[in-house]
Amino acid sequence: MQRIERHACFGGWQEVWRHESATLGCAMNVGVYLPPQAADGPCPVLYWLSGLTCTEQNFITKAGAQRYAAEHGLILVAPDTSPRGDGVPDGEGYDLGLGAGFYVNATRAPWATHYRMHDYVVDELPTLVEAHFPANAARAISGHSMGGHGALVLALRNPGRYRSVSAFAPIVAPSQVPWGRKAFTAYLGPDESAWREWDACALVANATERLPLRVDQGEADDFLREQLQPWRLQEACSAADHPLQLALHAGSDHSYYFIASLIGTHIAWHAHALRD
Amino acid sequence: MQRIERHACFGGWQEVWRHESATLGCAMNVGVYLPPQAADGPCPVLYWLSGLTCTEQNFITKAGAQRYAAEHGLILVAPDTSPRGDGVPDGEGYDLGLGAGFYVNATRAPWATHYRMHDYVVDELPTLVEAHFPANAARAISGHSMGGHGALVLALRNPGRYRSVSAFAPIVAPSQVPWGRKAFTAYLGPDESAWREWDACALVANATERLPLRVDQGEADDFLREQLQPWRLQEACSAADHPLQLALHAGSDHSYYFIASLIGTHIAWHAHALRD
Repeated sequence: MQRIERHACFGGWQEVWRHESATLGCAMNVGVYLPPQAADGPCPVLYWLSGLTCTEQNFITKAGAQRYAAEHGLILVAPDTSPRGDGVPDGEGYDLGLGAGFYVNATRAPWATHYRMHDYVVDELPTLVEAHFPANAARAISGHSMGGHGALVLALRNPGRYRSVSAFAPIVAPSQVPWGRKAFTAYLGPDESAWREWDACALVANATERLPLRVDQGEADDFLREQLQPWRLQEACSAADHPLQLALHAGSDHSYYFIASLIGTHIAWHAHALRD
Repeated sequence: MQRIERHACFGGWQEVWRHESATLGCAMNVGVYLPPQAADGPCPVLYWLSGLTCTEQNFITKAGAQRYAAEHGLILVAPDTSPRGDGVPDGEGYDLGLGAGFYVNATRAPWATHYRMHDYVVDELPTLVEAHFPANAARAISGHSMGGHGALVLALRNPGRYRSVSAFAPIVAPSQVPWGRKAFTAYLGPDESAWREWDACALVANATERLPLRVDQGEADDFLREQLQPWRLQEACSAADHPLQLALHAGSDHSYYFIASLIGTHIAWHAHALRD
């Protein structure tokens, strides 16, 4: 672990670390915000998964989350959105390959070697974080768009791993929408039955844990009807009697201005779950 | 005035407008945040001046100021940092020309035609803002680095124009430091006596208004010793018995993480002055 950035921020430190990931077979950058409370002892951790085209920088520079993390004593961990570097294959378009890992473990060539973002975020990264920072094992997860999909899927696939999960404008049914179908066809192959393991709407049907899903969605989001379709999650949760707190926001779009406006309420909500 | 961006943000709207500036002889982008209170009637305005290399985007995406502007009912206006476009001359390096207008009225070729950022920010922009938005004539000004210099100089040169002024890590004595000497030599010519009109430390000596100057400076700022030198402002204010509230912050650097950490206290302070 090598620290490549360090900035004083709301009484704590916004840092960026770089490390060799064994899971992904490449070097990865990860944003880590250490709140003031981390100077006195271990703090719980909120993992943040960003959307298409993002790196570890977008959330740490644009969301304004540090203020609330400092208030509640949470560490924020924001990884990059795909493997990167020489030898890591890229896809056609912004929605496949670099910056578009979709938080799955790819099974098809040429992706399977490096594109293992699920295992990286669920296993390797927390192990690193809990070894190198004053972090305890209380974990929450959230994300935006492709990263909202990632947060929901990682929480649903790994019962007991996260105390709480939330998402901003998530892709809730990747098997049914263009972004997800393109990525899953490449990463997982054309057999759609293999996709169900990576689709929040499908996973909800068999969820054992019943962790409440918190989702906020802007009604002026340009991707709402074609790519996001939160009503599919509402139907799936209703059919499975799975707890869902879905809120639609008039006027809000897909930008970080939407995230910034609501990240404070999400962090307060995660902090409550992490305190218990 | 043409609106080119509009995002819901903390109950109000973060917008970007584009307009032809008669003062600068080119089209300019300007960020305008309209707080929720602007829907009910005119609000006071805080002008924000950004630093070297910035556009209107840096402050609106990175400072997290909208939350506080929404709390206090302030409009935030964040212009670009120089004229731009075909026919606008550029200089050698990031610190002269495009992105480096230094908030002066240039007097030398080839700069004098377009580089008139003082008049743009002090006169043209408020006239536009007060005509096109629910803004009243109560104005405050703040900025960062080159823009902190701009805020101090514009307030000191224009008594009665601003109710309050503050700066983050400002260039306080441009006549004495490399950034300022390079820019002033180009924009104003080699006669240093002409520079005094654009130098906060020189202007303080003859200030009639005695508007308190609020300055926050990080002690881990890489530009502190060579370019910023806040002790020069402390000496000038002390000699002129001019009110100054200078605070140094251990660990803080020159980044937007520093601005984000303190913008809330600056906005609360400006809001108090603007309410009176």
